[in-house]
Amino acid sequence: MATTSPRNRLSRRAARSRAHHTAGTGPEHDVESEFATEAQDAEISVDTALLRDVLAGAYAEERRASRELIKDERFHHVPGRTKEEQRDRTFEALKSLAGSDAVMAGLPTDQGGGGRPGAYVASFEEFVLADASLQIKAGVQWGLFGSAVLNLGTQAHHDKWLPDIWDLKIPGAFAMTETGHGSDVASIATTATYDPESQEFEIHTPHRAAWKDYLGNAAIHGRAAVVFAQLITGGVNHGVHALYVPIRNDDGQFLPGVGGEDDGHKGGLNGVDNGRLHFTHVRVPRENLLDRYGHVDPDGTYTSPIESPGRRFFTMLGTLVQGRVSLDGSSVVATRAGLAIALTYANERRQFSPVQGQPERTLLDYHRHRRRLFPYVARVLAAGFAHEELLEAYDDVFSGRTDTDDARQDLETLAAAMKATSTRLALDALQECREACGGSGFLSENRIVDLHHDMDVYATFEGDNTVLMQLVAKRLLGDHAREFARMDVGVMARWVADRATETAVNRSGLRGLSQVFRDSADPRRSVNALRDPETQRSLLTDRVRSMIGEVAENMRGAGKGSPEATAEAFDRNQHRLIEAARAHAHLLQWEAFTRALDTVEDPGTHQVLLWLRDLYGLSVIEEHLDWYLSHGRMSLMRGRMVESYVDRLVTRLRPHIMDVVDSFDLAPEHLRARIASGAEAQRQQEAADWVAAEKAAGRWPRSEKGGTNR
Amino acid sequence: MATTSPRNRLSRRAARSRAHHTAGTGPEHDVESEFATEAQDAEISVDTALLRDVLAGAYAEERRASRELIKDERFHHVPGRTKEEQRDRTFEALKSLAGSDAVMAGLPTDQGGGGRPGAYVASFEEFVLADASLQIKAGVQWGLFGSAVLNLGTQAHHDKWLPDIWDLKIPGAFAMTETGHGSDVASIATTATYDPESQEFEIHTPHRAAWKDYLGNAAIHGRAAVVFAQLITGGVNHGVHALYVPIRNDDGQFLPGVGGEDDGHKGGLNGVDNGRLHFTHVRVPRENLLDRYGHVDPDGTYTSPIESPGRRFFTMLGTLVQGRVSLDGSSVVATRAGLAIALTYANERRQFSPVQGQPERTLLDYHRHRRRLFPYVARVLAAGFAHEELLEAYDDVFSGRTDTDDARQDLETLAAAMKATSTRLALDALQECREACGGSGFLSENRIVDLHHDMDVYATFEGDNTVLMQLVAKRLLGDHAREFARMDVGVMARWVADRATETAVNRSGLRGLSQVFRDSADPRRSVNALRDPETQRSLLTDRVRSMIGEVAENMRGAGKGSPEATAEAFDRNQHRLIEAARAHAHLLQWEAFTRALDTVEDPGTHQVLLWLRDLYGLSVIEEHLDWYLSHGRMSLMRGRMVESYVDRLVTRLRPHIMDVVDSFDLAPEHLRARIASGAEAQRQQEAADWVAAEKAAGRWPRSEKGGTNR
Repeated sequence: MATTSPRNRLSRRAARSRAHHTAGTGPEHDVESEFATEAQDAEISVDTALLRDVLAGAYAEERRASRELIKDERFHHVPGRTKEEQRDRTFEALKSLAGSDAVMAGLPTDQGGGGRPGAYVASFEEFVLADASLQIKAGVQWGLFGSAVLNLGTQAHHDKWLPDIWDLKIPGAFAMTETGHGSDVASIATTATYDPESQEFEIHTPHRAAWKDYLGNAAIHGRAAVVFAQLITGGVNHGVHALYVPIRNDDGQFLPGVGGEDDGHKGGLNGVDNGRLHFTHVRVPRENLLDRYGHVDPDGTYTSPIESPGRRFFTMLGTLVQGRVSLDGSSVVATRAGLAIALTYANERRQFSPVQGQPERTLLDYHRHRRRLFPYVARVLAAGFAHEELLEAYDDVFSGRTDTDDARQDLETLAAAMKATSTRLALDALQECREACGGSGFLSENRIVDLHHDMDVYATFEGDNTVLMQLVAKRLLGDHAREFARMDVGVMARWVADRATETAVNRSGLRGLSQVFRDSADPRRSVNALRDPETQRSLLTDRVRSMIGEVAENMRGAGKGSPEATAEAFDRNQHRLIEAARAHAHLLQWEAFTRALDTVEDPGTHQVLLWLRDLYGLSVIEEHLDWYLSHGRMSLMRGRMVESYVDRLVTRLRPHIMDVVDSFDLAPEHLRARIASGAEAQRQQEAADWVAAEKAAGRWPRSEKGGTNR
Repeated sequence: MATTSPRNRLSRRAARSRAHHTAGTGPEHDVESEFATEAQDAEISVDTALLRDVLAGAYAEERRASRELIKDERFHHVPGRTKEEQRDRTFEALKSLAGSDAVMAGLPTDQGGGGRPGAYVASFEEFVLADASLQIKAGVQWGLFGSAVLNLGTQAHHDKWLPDIWDLKIPGAFAMTETGHGSDVASIATTATYDPESQEFEIHTPHRAAWKDYLGNAAIHGRAAVVFAQLITGGVNHGVHALYVPIRNDDGQFLPGVGGEDDGHKGGLNGVDNGRLHFTHVRVPRENLLDRYGHVDPDGTYTSPIESPGRRFFTMLGTLVQGRVSLDGSSVVATRAGLAIALTYANERRQFSPVQGQPERTLLDYHRHRRRLFPYVARVLAAGFAHEELLEAYDDVFSGRTDTDDARQDLETLAAAMKATSTRLALDALQECREACGGSGFLSENRIVDLHHDMDVYATFEGDNTVLMQLVAKRLLGDHAREFARMDVGVMARWVADRATETAVNRSGLRGLSQVFRDSADPRRSVNALRDPETQRSLLTDRVRSMIGEVAENMRGAGKGSPEATAEAFDRNQHRLIEAARAHAHLLQWEAFTRALDTVEDPGTHQVLLWLRDLYGLSVIEEHLDWYLSHGRMSLMRGRMVESYVDRLVTRLRPHIMDVVDSFDLAPEHLRARIASGAEAQRQQEAADWVAAEKAAGRWPRSEKGGTNR
């Protein structure tokens, strides 16, 4: 929020007299001189073909093939149908996908697949454009159920089940979550007890809280399930392991001992048949234990390649990171679709004439409307660039190229941070898009509401966002402690907050910070500093580093006390920790955006992307401006300039925003929104033509006060 | 965000040594000494019967009767049904409501009704607990269609139509909005042209953009409509007027010249049959003009009791404020329901054991969870108290007690501000509630998602929130200009931002502000100041005043230029204006909360409400902390204490929050959420009993590392 303090007003006048462009009186004109003039602006243009390629990323070919495939309407969500109709339709669509290149890419080459995990996930992410239920149902079948057999099982399991899973002969459920334990998988109560007599495991859910819950494919279509249970042999609990358990016969009836319940209607994703499963002393052969990380001999002896039960547990869970990776990517795709609809409409829709007798303005010509939507464009670009890097990290590990413990841990942290950030972004952006379209935005024919309803659950499944951010924060705290252990206190200032991407608060960053207090009287210098990527980087980095450092300091005393005191201290700092993890995720996205920017050579495209990167960085800084100010990281003058500069950026981006939307490369078959079909512009033309004809014919009524009042 | 700067740490140590309670190391312990000890806290308890009465407000009796009535399941929304089934069900429920005391209260006494507009609206607001579609369908029938005949028509219209409207013999639509013009009613394109020959009006929608759109009762059930059209007689357009137009015959077929379209499936409210209507030279008798504010004689002569066409238009629209009033109230009711569900669940649900071997914690015992939900409790209380005042203002005007132009204008401004604020609150709170319940929150059986979907449209109907906030801001700007015209510049400091409730920035308020900079080294003084209601009031007031003053200054130069320059200046300041209007609404809510607090004498209830009022004020201040800091309204130290104090408040409120929820007075028939039914606690008991029994029987497995690892 700009101010009108006398000093500021004086500097503003000084700045204005230097500016090329002198119209207007708002404080945002302080920054005018920092920009090219509008005449120069007019020469800037986006090379949309280039930007399409940049946004499509490393798997552009697979993404385009996937988008082409789902133009077929049999894959499309149809709003307003009952859950039964939606489930049937989604299952039929899933059958059509089986055997496609997209699906086969996820199967190892030795099973006849493509063995390209990154390509596979990228293709899948695009399915959300057809139907989020289809994306999730595919994710359940191949990404969770199939992946569990692949990643937790061994060769015999692969040979026996993968082909049938991949061609959908065995639809399956991923039975991990229990009603009594959502994100706390280590505490599940289902048991798999080995009986050496019969060489079988007995799967048992001892009480209602142990029922498996929210499982896709469980209510109707699943024939088998990968069931997570506490593995008990010889009276010893070896912790959570996964077993392959048939649940229904070919007629779709539950097998003996297996039961379940339908989760019923949901807030979205009603094409997925979520349900509950329970097991009463159900027996499966010893060989059904997916035993890559824990094996039971016929006599009941337990062995594992991983000594520590804790590490073993996290390693097993870590193999399932694919779900989070693909939710991150599909959130980006869905957010782009929502923004494309809202912006296309806003670019055509006219409401109110600010000057009597003149044509009504398009929504995008209103400052508030740009302020509402453009920062989300910047955010979805940042999220998209960061996702591309996540996808690369995922492919590195799961293709086996760089499958180390460290790489896996980095991947998991990155996936947790990105999934929690982009699913949040999708919900916030889609809500803003829906409201920005007014009543039209609430009609299913305009798509946004249905997309929003589906995306809603992305915030809590495959790891509740709060729990995920806590994981990220713990990792940051751990890194901090390790750095601390190796350094004396004086070196702490160089502590690297952003270990995952190895970005240090470098000397120039620190110099940037000390600079903060020197430009406090000069808005031009403030704006120049805000535009400097090193300032943005150091501000974003410093916030993560400081918050983690602060929590670490708060916790250090408590760490020496009782476990209760430690837990208490952790709880007191939980809110701050999660905020630090969010800040970390935003920094990673900013860096990914900056790296992507560096690859673009075309000047116009580079300029527009640069504005969007700045808009991203500054909208994040603006969101946390209170922190920067109250912690003395920014002068009050510079703080006030943030808002003005963001205001100016959204105005400067106005002529180019539709080119950016165009570069999302979404066809009418992907958007399927009436208001984004051109109908709005056509209607307006028709109305304008009618008025012109009436006036020409002398039929236009006078206004009560004389003249024409419409 | 608290800091760890050396000075702060020193003061913290000093403060801590003075504190009663010395455990823990977090910065929030700075404020410890400002509170009673926990031992004293234990004696505090809420008188829930008293608080129920306080929250139920002036129309407690009507609200309770309404809640009792809708316990009947035939009124309840059933999730997952098709729109056709929902529409039938809602219409049947509406028939059951016709003739009830609640409905009859809205009819004037001379038509056999109760003539109690406030009581009527209060009763209606509660219907949202049964089914938002029912509330809205009732609102369409009696609140919009019926009210238009009542408030825009004259005695003959009342006698002819009101009885049939009130007993639902004539279901009707309120045909104002057009596809081409949403919030800009003055620009609608439908015409009503008077023909003195036949003494009829000809209603005509000349093109697609002029079709009436989003009208409840239009797709199926409506037999008539109040149609808003440009009234043209003798070649002169007298602006927008309303006419009563039959649209369907008794068989439900469109009458000649009338056509329409179904708006189809929507993001919620599918029990309401929204649709489009168009009219091709449809003729109605001259008497069908609802002519309270504009009359046409048989010869075509137009007369109006209001000279100015502009004022006439706004007066007519102003009679329809009831819709906004009731959306404000029902948003409060719906938000309370969502919070009651999420908090009841969070109070029972356990996840993760922070200390190995100890029981898992309830969600409410996690700091982050309290931080997520408790500020919404404070906000819904503030919104509720403000709504009660709005309802009183509404009843004053519409009962005729104080029906002046000024009172109407104040009412409209207040209604716009409150509707925009509480509908936003409902969406934000319900989304947080849904996520706070994890996967369970996404199931329709737990209600929150369906409630959220229905409330979504409240943000844009009966006036888009952005447009409403702009109206409020324009009023504030106008008040500012009027004050300015009467005063020399020196007096501007005393300018009263909050004219509607006549609260001045009084001397103590200004003293409070100058105090800000004196306590900067002492966290205790900072916290004491934050707790002081005069500090909160002056901070909230000052922000509104300063932002409006700043925009006024920005606009003053532009106002002397061309209309284009003025429009441009307004657009540049639009974002700021809307923020100022939001700040104004928050101030009004804070004041209403404070007034309500003053009426509560019971010490325990008063204390808890005081904490909640402080939580409200400080969470609003925290939301805009960047503004307070960058504009020098708060010292950096005090700024950092805001977060700590909010942290502490939510912890202090923990033992009392369920009493507050209890005071919402919502029965299981109103909540209808499985997770809020006690099933969760029962399941946990069952699981705990099972574990205990297994252990007692010696069947509990050892952990791999020895001991019991679960």
